[in-house]
Amino acid sequence: MTRILVSEVGPRDGLQSIKAMMSLEDKKRWIAAEAAAGVPEIEVGSFVPPSLLPQMADTAELVRFARGIEGLNVVALVPNAKGASRAVEAGVHGMSLPFSMSETHSKKNLRKDHPEMIAEIGEASRIARGGGVHFAVGLATAFGCTLEGAVSEDQVVRLAEAAASAGAQELGLSDTTGYADPAQVRRLVRRVKAAVGDDMLTTLHLHNTRGLGLANVVAGLEEGITTFDASLGGLGGCPFAPGASGNIVTEDLVLMLNSMGFDTGIDLRALLKVRQILREALPGEPLYGFTPDAGPMLDYDERTAA
Amino acid sequence: MTRILVSEVGPRDGLQSIKAMMSLEDKKRWIAAEAAAGVPEIEVGSFVPPSLLPQMADTAELVRFARGIEGLNVVALVPNAKGASRAVEAGVHGMSLPFSMSETHSKKNLRKDHPEMIAEIGEASRIARGGGVHFAVGLATAFGCTLEGAVSEDQVVRLAEAAASAGAQELGLSDTTGYADPAQVRRLVRRVKAAVGDDMLTTLHLHNTRGLGLANVVAGLEEGITTFDASLGGLGGCPFAPGASGNIVTEDLVLMLNSMGFDTGIDLRALLKVRQILREALPGEPLYGFTPDAGPMLDYDERTAA
Repeated sequence: MTRILVSEVGPRDGLQSIKAMMSLEDKKRWIAAEAAAGVPEIEVGSFVPPSLLPQMADTAELVRFARGIEGLNVVALVPNAKGASRAVEAGVHGMSLPFSMSETHSKKNLRKDHPEMIAEIGEASRIARGGGVHFAVGLATAFGCTLEGAVSEDQVVRLAEAAASAGAQELGLSDTTGYADPAQVRRLVRRVKAAVGDDMLTTLHLHNTRGLGLANVVAGLEEGITTFDASLGGLGGCPFAPGASGNIVTEDLVLMLNSMGFDTGIDLRALLKVRQILREALPGEPLYGFTPDAGPMLDYDERTAA
Repeated sequence: MTRILVSEVGPRDGLQSIKAMMSLEDKKRWIAAEAAAGVPEIEVGSFVPPSLLPQMADTAELVRFARGIEGLNVVALVPNAKGASRAVEAGVHGMSLPFSMSETHSKKNLRKDHPEMIAEIGEASRIARGGGVHFAVGLATAFGCTLEGAVSEDQVVRLAEAAASAGAQELGLSDTTGYADPAQVRRLVRRVKAAVGDDMLTTLHLHNTRGLGLANVVAGLEEGITTFDASLGGLGGCPFAPGASGNIVTEDLVLMLNSMGFDTGIDLRALLKVRQILREALPGEPLYGFTPDAGPMLDYDERTAA
């Protein structure tokens, strides 16, 4: 069985996009329950200035908590070198820095143009490596931008190479805006892999804005992608890209991957129960996904044993 | 550009599964508006006994109406030879007979075991051919059954061969219960095509019960499937298979196919407006789909011109 890594990003990407605040205790319950269901990696928060995203102010504390869970890979988002220092200090296993392929989005989201971002990646990478921390770069708005529209594939390839040269140990393509279609995913993954090496591009971060999220996962699997970000209940999105809400739903992703015979290590039935924590902690917040209502197929256990 | 046929089944599969009745006039408005948006084929109803599905009592009248729309391929479902006669009489271009791969489901849905169904296919096929009408068989519950669980792939292959020998001019695989996963779609399409010939298996009828509908479309496209059934607003399902509700959503399917560069002939923006007819005709009925809320991507026109 091929191993596929499902990385839960709800505590970061989910929570940063909603108004309701989740308490530190509820976040801990959520993280502990997902880890217990077998989720191997969780992005627990973001080292942005708390004044910008108060919801992420407890990230360092969550990192320390999550580091106490055996077998869990604890990652966090960092917007810049300063965030990278805080992440190292807090003790993350890995960090991911978003690098927007749309320069308009980059300036609006992180207030830096492309050359400034590449310099920042270089500095953050040195800090991460110095602290023995895995350093990934997420190529945001790689499939299009709600501000610019189309983002040229040549530009994505060029910037992917620049990020790798600047020190990224791993790259991901992020459909920040829910623009990706499966043909584009196959084409762009293939082009970027050809440019930076097959092992450098591992991850897809997909949104379900237009319902194409899992279709894009299938395209990514065909091209050898081995890590998919997802958010429990489809919570979340990017607060700076209008209409971009909705990561792919962890529950539906895990059903699909397990049913296809991939090894995610995740117990779907245990995962479905974690949803109740979100319901209690975020009353009234919309949760997405089809599997929670329909449940696994009658022959689900036969499929996953295959 | 590769031509992909999107077949709208909402007036049949959608309406047969809901309690609310749609008037003949509203059905005509719906069919006319979808055809005007470029939808090339519509399953306008089912020639089942009206006592069983009163919602389908006006199918013959709808066929006559739809035949008046230039360029539209008018198809209907027929449960048996008697329905085939009525369909020929009404003047359909094509008919489709559902043949359930799960014998339990077959007995419950059409009150016939497999040998009886094959005999019925033979008779219906002779009636259709005699009337110059295209005759397709839909292999229902091909991916699993809410009553039996797993359906053996060997059995699906054997029954597909039997249906072809009995006179089917075309076959489809139907995920009546929303059980299919993309790996299974690829495997089963490949096996059935190998058994009956590449041109005989053309169609996938998919449900979105567990959110995997469009992911399964991608798998089907990879294996050379050229026709996909879908329902506007995701209306519908199978009333005899509990928990099976929800065809894939025409709006999201068309966005995906057009964006991928396939030629569907459908104007997405015109299609999105048709949804309003359902809202007016079926107040309170849940409608699905993401594209109606999000709208096309900013660069949608560039993608589809590619």
